Amino acid sequence: MHNALGNFLTLTTFGESHGPAYGGIVTNFPAGLVVDLDAIQRDLDRRKPGQSAIVTQRKESDTVKFLSGIFEGKSTGTPIGFIIENENQKSKDYAHIAQAYRPSHADFTYDQKFGIRDYRGGGKSSARETVNWVVAGSLAKQIVPTFEINAFVSSVGDIFCEKPYQDLDFSKTEDNIVRCPDEATAERMIEKIKEIKKEGNTIGGTITCVIKNVPAGLGEPVFGKLQAELAKAMMNINAAKGFEYGSGFCGARMTGKEHNDLFNPDFTTKTNLSGGIQGGISNGMDIYFRVAFKPVATLLRPQESIDKYGNTIIVEGKGRHDPCVLPRAVPIVESLAAFVLADLFLINKLRKI
Amino acid sequence: MHNALGNFLTLTTFGESHGPAYGGIVTNFPAGLVVDLDAIQRDLDRRKPGQSAIVTQRKESDTVKFLSGIFEGKSTGTPIGFIIENENQKSKDYAHIAQAYRPSHADFTYDQKFGIRDYRGGGKSSARETVNWVVAGSLAKQIVPTFEINAFVSSVGDIFCEKPYQDLDFSKTEDNIVRCPDEATAERMIEKIKEIKKEGNTIGGTITCVIKNVPAGLGEPVFGKLQAELAKAMMNINAAKGFEYGSGFCGARMTGKEHNDLFNPDFTTKTNLSGGIQGGISNGMDIYFRVAFKPVATLLRPQESIDKYGNTIIVEGKGRHDPCVLPRAVPIVESLAAFVLADLFLINKLRKI
Amino acid sequence: MHNALGNFLTLTTFGESHGPAYGGIVTNFPAGLVVDLDAIQRDLDRRKPGQSAIVTQRKESDTVKFLSGIFEGKSTGTPIGFIIENENQKSKDYAHIAQAYRPSHADFTYDQKFGIRDYRGGGKSSARETVNWVVAGSLAKQIVPTFEINAFVSSVGDIFCEKPYQDLDFSKTEDNIVRCPDEATAERMIEKIKEIKKEGNTIGGTITCVIKNVPAGLGEPVFGKLQAELAKAMMNINAAKGFEYGSGFCGARMTGKEHNDLFNPDFTTKTNLSGGIQGGISNGMDIYFRVAFKPVATLLRPQESIDKYGNTIIVEGKGRHDPCVLPRAVPIVESLAAFVLADLFLINKLRKI
Amino acid sequence: MHNALGNFLTLTTFGESHGPAYGGIVTNFPAGLVVDLDAIQRDLDRRKPGQSAIVTQRKESDTVKFLSGIFEGKSTGTPIGFIIENENQKSKDYAHIAQAYRPSHADFTYDQKFGIRDYRGGGKSSARETVNWVVAGSLAKQIVPTFEINAFVSSVGDIFCEKPYQDLDFSKTEDNIVRCPDEATAERMIEKIKEIKKEGNTIGGTITCVIKNVPAGLGEPVFGKLQAELAKAMMNINAAKGFEYGSGFCGARMTGKEHNDLFNPDFTTKTNLSGGIQGGISNGMDIYFRVAFKPVATLLRPQESIDKYGNTIIVEGKGRHDPCVLPRAVPIVESLAAFVLADLFLINKLRKI
Repeated sequence: MHNALGNFLTLTTFGESHGPAYGGIVTNFPAGLVVDLDAIQRDLDRRKPGQSAIVTQRKESDTVKFLSGIFEGKSTGTPIGFIIENENQKSKDYAHIAQAYRPSHADFTYDQKFGIRDYRGGGKSSARETVNWVVAGSLAKQIVPTFEINAFVSSVGDIFCEKPYQDLDFSKTEDNIVRCPDEATAERMIEKIKEIKKEGNTIGGTITCVIKNVPAGLGEPVFGKLQAELAKAMMNINAAKGFEYGSGFCGARMTGKEHNDLFNPDFTTKTNLSGGIQGGISNGMDIYFRVAFKPVATLLRPQESIDKYGNTIIVEGKGRHDPCVLPRAVPIVESLAAFVLADLFLINKLRKI
Repeated sequence: MHNALGNFLTLTTFGESHGPAYGGIVTNFPAGLVVDLDAIQRDLDRRKPGQSAIVTQRKESDTVKFLSGIFEGKSTGTPIGFIIENENQKSKDYAHIAQAYRPSHADFTYDQKFGIRDYRGGGKSSARETVNWVVAGSLAKQIVPTFEINAFVSSVGDIFCEKPYQDLDFSKTEDNIVRCPDEATAERMIEKIKEIKKEGNTIGGTITCVIKNVPAGLGEPVFGKLQAELAKAMMNINAAKGFEYGSGFCGARMTGKEHNDLFNPDFTTKTNLSGGIQGGISNGMDIYFRVAFKPVATLLRPQESIDKYGNTIIVEGKGRHDPCVLPRAVPIVESLAAFVLADLFLINKLRKI
Repeated sequence: MHNALGNFLTLTTFGESHGPAYGGIVTNFPAGLVVDLDAIQRDLDRRKPGQSAIVTQRKESDTVKFLSGIFEGKSTGTPIGFIIENENQKSKDYAHIAQAYRPSHADFTYDQKFGIRDYRGGGKSSARETVNWVVAGSLAKQIVPTFEINAFVSSVGDIFCEKPYQDLDFSKTEDNIVRCPDEATAERMIEKIKEIKKEGNTIGGTITCVIKNVPAGLGEPVFGKLQAELAKAMMNINAAKGFEYGSGFCGARMTGKEHNDLFNPDFTTKTNLSGGIQGGISNGMDIYFRVAFKPVATLLRPQESIDKYGNTIIVEGKGRHDPCVLPRAVPIVESLAAFVLADLFLINKLRKI
Repeated sequence: MHNALGNFLTLTTFGESHGPAYGGIVTNFPAGLVVDLDAIQRDLDRRKPGQSAIVTQRKESDTVKFLSGIFEGKSTGTPIGFIIENENQKSKDYAHIAQAYRPSHADFTYDQKFGIRDYRGGGKSSARETVNWVVAGSLAKQIVPTFEINAFVSSVGDIFCEKPYQDLDFSKTEDNIVRCPDEATAERMIEKIKEIKKEGNTIGGTITCVIKNVPAGLGEPVFGKLQAELAKAMMNINAAKGFEYGSGFCGARMTGKEHNDLFNPDFTTKTNLSGGIQGGISNGMDIYFRVAFKPVATLLRPQESIDKYGNTIIVEGKGRHDPCVLPRAVPIVESLAAFVLADLFLINKLRKI
């Protein structure tokens, strides 16, 4: 179903940027789990706007309210409904774009598809939808607490974190506002974003996600391969343009002799170009993947565009927009990864007698 | 459901490399369509082994038999069941690998997941499963006959087709055995594959797919974005390691000013870094994406590995394997793209009154 | 998915009797429809407690808030999220049953299944969940406004409405508090319920639903037969014990010669024992079915029971319970029928080219 | 998805009466189970035509071929594909009905829905589809081998098996050709069917199914209630007109005081009007339900009808039709019940930590 994430553990969502609230329903969350609500709010806080000088200055408290499925601190096994109220809707801000088709936004495609759209703040196409995903993913993490899921910003524009992930200390990711665990690179990234912001411009980048301690066996042979489920989830993030896991696009330049991961006698592998997945199923090695994000389409500078009648207009973003989505996308990537893995973890329990 | 492709138009499949047959069921194929069975067989022939010197020399006729859903040449709207019988199973060939865990194969992960596996020819993990997808995708093409779906080999190892796709003549893709429409590049690719084959080695590469004439409106806002559905389908192909669309990973290095696609007054865009998709929904421009494939894991040369008990063994591929999957993957990519698009095309018909 | 109603048009829900709110998400509601919010509230008011002397005296305003998917009075095609806040939770009322297993309630089965349950007011097993269904069904009615869906109470205990439905005037259903359009029968039913209520007892009954103006073609051949979709929806209502359509259980006593519905030259049929459905697909004749409801399990009189440790206890309902669910179930039956039909109506649009 | 049975364990099917074969795919069957193929064929033999004097004399061997998912006698966890070839298609028999709309058949509705239909032997609307369900259900039984699932013919026309099911010896069901375990009643039923057959007429009846040894906990709270899943499955059987469980329609005439099932200290209940289900979840008591079947629509005597142009015609069944579907429907009811229960059994394993 194309409004749900997950196969057994599922998330269905609703919400628009300037409606009263976002929210969702998580189905098949197992009963009896002590739910750490603070951990969920912490993940939401990592995603929320207004955290630092390099993200949007919009203020939203992004407080989640759970409406069902949790009783006296424990999950009851029944659907978990939740909402996050929108607080900071300034609908007047958007009157000027009611008829406008902003470049590289979804205004035109929504009009074509639906014949109507909530134009305020991007409506349904707003990335604010991801607030739902963080709630659900943070819940999902609690099903698989031993999995270590760490995403970080691995590039901003042409500035890349050159170290292999094995040389990074993920406990430092939150130490800087760009969420790159390599301090020197982080500083350059922050400088770059500030510079870009000053120009009213925006910039893209990549996020790398590393997942340790996943047992072998997760993923399904056909149409439910672990990498396909991850790719689907990640490519639903608003600005995502690409996904690769393990050797990725580099692997396409290699020979089999170079690329094959030879076994150790303990069933680990000497190398891990496979990215922890063989035949769509986890093999117990680290799972790692990378997601490419395009630069934000809203610029704080004038751009020529057209309105819905084909008239030439000038559009210009006002006030509170992200010059770079990467820092705030880190918890989103982690949350989606957690949800995909928890879903496949549960399913895998039923796959042999 | 993790054994199905598609949301409304769906494909469910079965089959193992050395079982009696592959097959599948296509549900919700619309009634009343004159089905071109020859076109389907032609697509199967493009995928089948034994076509040329640079692919596996195994022989399979890969003849599809339709068992339901088509009556007097027309679709009846009821489920279309089909099978492709396996002809060339030499199970004895595989006795030597019953206990072996081949490097970068799914032997170990299947054993971990299921505790049992059909080890003959890779069993369920064999890429022969894609024969089902070609049947279904070729059927799906007939739902959207005006969409022009052209995939081609855009790189083999370090040899890239450097021309932008706009400069290529897709009618030439089938003119050479590697399926690259640029003849000069094709020759170099073929040379490279022959050389690699001689060494008993294998090589990776990329396939680019371009889809023209897709109307605006296909794709769903959340969890059903067009790029996510494409990514999911492509990342289920056995050797796929990465997916990008439009500007892809290059887009992650750009600024918003460079990346935004400005509108023309007729609602087309001056550039198309978006790859024909905005907000998860097609905008009428060309859709294009690229899939990375790792080199085939089976080498015709000895590799050190282990068996299921952790003993060191030597594995060596015998006889009939692809040195490079790219040429045969071209129709697979096209078929999956067709299926995804036909599914979203049907769904889109219901999205406004 | 076992927390969703519908195949294409879907409803996912959440909520417990004494949590903060009920709610749900309707996916794939078509864009561009002017949504009549008053009509939805009217249906909710028909279901709500406290309407008359023969239903529970509990007070809930049951006001629905739409949180997304409707903009400037029209559906936008995006998911419609809604909540109904619970107002009248007196959780203290239920402390005495935290450990109790009430007869013919779900206390024991929930504990067995989940190992934990929200015991307040039945928690997830409360029929208050149906408030969600009325919202969704009332929305669905607006997709198929020409379908005339009329349910009514056709029996209470041994008091049956003996007239064939063709002799009833459905405009009179709302004229009495028991919702039987035959005034004389209604009076007897009301008397019966009052008498039963005085004893602290409860009583069962049946609801008949008649649907006119459904075009031929709705329903899918296998596993999606119209009668099966209706049965599934109805048998999910909390007290439902049986479902029959057309001739139903009476038809099982007949011969083919008696039962066959012969055609008129205009493709209508002379009789309609088929209940408007042939081969799982509507034929344009009236669809009618009947649902059996058991008596409410909560009695306002002492019953012997056990607690979760197997100790004998006395349970006794306090205060505000329905002596008979039938009157309030009428809008629930209509809503579910509307949802099922709207779903199949949309699907049917795609089933031929 | 409306071409699938089950939520986690799923069956997708295809096939038409006079096509080359029926078949299906069972997904998520657990790995490692020794599959008893003979037991499956025995169930098929119980359903097949030509078994006795009171069913159709058509001959079909109904031999199932498994094409995947079973290796060296054990399930591998991968999709189980199977086909049953049609042997006895006499398409010429049906030429006379190509344009005919037979009374109470699906000819008219299929034409309305799809604009085309395979008219041979009812095509997709033929009850021969149930051959697929018996294969899948018989497989499913092997997931839950301790569940005792016994269906039997409880009425034919006005002849009812009056004994409560507790007084019946299910080991005798197969001792007579009508499949009623009460020998005296069986004889009367057989007489009745023979008499009806002589007249070229047909007759309806009911099947009761009793399931013992089901643990508490199966079924999901909302939209996945055990009774709703059973009802949906049963109401998909071609001639089914009604479904009731536990007290069923009789329960609708009772008061709460009569109907409530009081607990014993060991958590069993003194009575079982609930039919083994509370709040949609099994409680460990016997599950029992009853399905009503209408008389077969095909009569071996002339009936007035119309053709697709509205012309009056005479239709008359030829040769080989069931005068009463009940005896052959017994294994179908059992198979569907087994499939529903095995699906919910697997799901239930994941519902608490």
